[in-house]
Amino acid sequence: MESGKTEIVEKKYFTFGESEKDKIKLETGRKFGPVTIAYETYGKLNKKKNNTILIQHTLTMDSHAAGFYEGEEKAGWWDGLIGPGKAFDTDKFFVVCSNVFGGCSGSTGPSSLNQETGEPYGAGFPFFTSKDLVRIQRRLLRSLNIFKLFCVAGGSMGGMLALQWAADFPGEISSVIPVATAWKQSPMQIAFSEIGRQSIIKDPKWKGGNYYNSAKPDTGLVLARMIGHITYMSDASMEKKFSRNLKNGKLSFSFDTDFEVENYLHYRGESFVDRFDANSFLYISRALNYFDVSEEKLTSRLEGENIKFLVISFESDWLYPARQSEEMVHHLMSRNIDTSYCRIPSSYGHDAFLLEIEEESKLIKNFLKRVENEN
Amino acid sequence: MESGKTEIVEKKYFTFGESEKDKIKLETGRKFGPVTIAYETYGKLNKKKNNTILIQHTLTMDSHAAGFYEGEEKAGWWDGLIGPGKAFDTDKFFVVCSNVFGGCSGSTGPSSLNQETGEPYGAGFPFFTSKDLVRIQRRLLRSLNIFKLFCVAGGSMGGMLALQWAADFPGEISSVIPVATAWKQSPMQIAFSEIGRQSIIKDPKWKGGNYYNSAKPDTGLVLARMIGHITYMSDASMEKKFSRNLKNGKLSFSFDTDFEVENYLHYRGESFVDRFDANSFLYISRALNYFDVSEEKLTSRLEGENIKFLVISFESDWLYPARQSEEMVHHLMSRNIDTSYCRIPSSYGHDAFLLEIEEESKLIKNFLKRVENEN
Repeated sequence: MESGKTEIVEKKYFTFGESEKDKIKLETGRKFGPVTIAYETYGKLNKKKNNTILIQHTLTMDSHAAGFYEGEEKAGWWDGLIGPGKAFDTDKFFVVCSNVFGGCSGSTGPSSLNQETGEPYGAGFPFFTSKDLVRIQRRLLRSLNIFKLFCVAGGSMGGMLALQWAADFPGEISSVIPVATAWKQSPMQIAFSEIGRQSIIKDPKWKGGNYYNSAKPDTGLVLARMIGHITYMSDASMEKKFSRNLKNGKLSFSFDTDFEVENYLHYRGESFVDRFDANSFLYISRALNYFDVSEEKLTSRLEGENIKFLVISFESDWLYPARQSEEMVHHLMSRNIDTSYCRIPSSYGHDAFLLEIEEESKLIKNFLKRVENEN
Repeated sequence: MESGKTEIVEKKYFTFGESEKDKIKLETGRKFGPVTIAYETYGKLNKKKNNTILIQHTLTMDSHAAGFYEGEEKAGWWDGLIGPGKAFDTDKFFVVCSNVFGGCSGSTGPSSLNQETGEPYGAGFPFFTSKDLVRIQRRLLRSLNIFKLFCVAGGSMGGMLALQWAADFPGEISSVIPVATAWKQSPMQIAFSEIGRQSIIKDPKWKGGNYYNSAKPDTGLVLARMIGHITYMSDASMEKKFSRNLKNGKLSFSFDTDFEVENYLHYRGESFVDRFDANSFLYISRALNYFDVSEEKLTSRLEGENIKFLVISFESDWLYPARQSEEMVHHLMSRNIDTSYCRIPSSYGHDAFLLEIEEESKLIKNFLKRVENEN
């Protein structure tokens, strides 16, 4: 199935909003610019400009969805699904992935320099919503001469942004693949977000968000990431991976790291701070809490549109439980919107959408073939 | 069923280990004393001294399991189950509940005064295990002339301590009721504990555990409690209680508290610091992580003993999932140990053991009647 070719990819940048007129008006009413968006593309845009697949990343990932950067050995985060002959087949499709506005991997975010002050925006960065993220992304696509998407797909936050696209620009999309996600954040998801945010905000080094000239709130960000990692796994996957294995073969009778699971969380937390900005975490998680396209907000926009859904959930995902996907599927189907749904048996928890590549590949390939045939 | 009588109860204290010889030798080898244990009793010890039921509390609760303190309006935490005519019928049984060693509700713990230094123990408090907690509790019972327990029961940590009793002193117990618990902590449970501990330890006010002469690490303890509260509920119970309801009717576009669920967690966190000591949280949660009576550690001790188990789990409890109770039940029954098991349908999550009083009452009443008849 997979051709196994190694593709060298590079990060590109698009900037808009340098003039007052060209700035983006955010949902809060605030006008903002300039905005730079980092993005990557895989495959080629066809002449009809109708073969674009937009891939959306999660809260802490970035535009590097597939391929390898020159000299790097680690592939993009959904490389198993994107490439020549793969589910999102780059021999056929033009795949685009962009880092969200507010992020810290090349797109304008709180850690970017405010040209007016010469300092990073910090807490002066504007609040934004998933609607804003989609509108900003649309500007990028227009700059690439893309006015219609063959598909928009993503897992977790990426799935929410795909759904926001469908709710806001249903006429511009042929298909949507929301994976391991929800059409509105649940109170449990909001609660875990708030814990992560409080970990950062209560770190004295956060300093109200203006920490860029001093030590960063790493302690808080490590803690937020440790919490995140628990929610990405499942009881079963943790049992299998760690059980009660000890790091040093015996109990320390102290508050040091005794168990391998503790060690893993510390390691994941500490490696996160090198690549992620605490303020980006705060702003993006806030936007996610506000996300809600449930019921009429989505379905009323889709009637009469030629749009197809492939909804995927995973059995052991307790952070974005199947019941949320199923609620959405129920409403979509009740409105006679072309919807395929699959709950994949998996013990990996929320992380399954990054790991169950073989299962996802089959479903996505078949679905995209049908979208092509019936378009 | 319930007589509805209001019982006034009071906290009592037992102290031992004032002389070198009388000190407790902990599992680490360290000798420690004096030790004071706060406890309460409900009902009367009969002449045969064979009607005692020992109730075990959770990590953050205390000896006040039932009745009312003089002038107080809030009943003990398992008052629905303990009292005249109730499941643990105080017309018939002598019910004892004691605050664990290491706690902060009257028993000796890190916040207690070290008589040798005139300062609170702080980080100088000894590490202990669930085996130590049980042995210390046994000293209290012996001081009350109790050498045999009719039953030992508890939920969550309380269930673990009940199981530790069964593993360590099987000949001294007629029955065990472990509720919403496990016979060893899982990596997920250890992981959530570690997050709570790190919240406290990384609070600059913790000061290595010696904070009693300055501001307390309230920020960290609030965060630890907020995390705890998420794990006590379920996706369904949070959806029902909070949904996406807003605190002030509209979004703030800030990091302030927007959603009711956030507000609830903050409230629960902030009210916790008034009644609980951060070091007690650290020491007790560490002891829990070390808890493991799985397989041979429990079952090999029980063969030939006249001991009965009633194991209760709850369907939506994802912190102490039914699979853990079922694993234990499977092993107990394989060894021909008299075991009744019930998984109660409930949407309350881990909190169910405090809320599903009616269901628990029926099961416990019937079980205790059988223990009486067959003893």
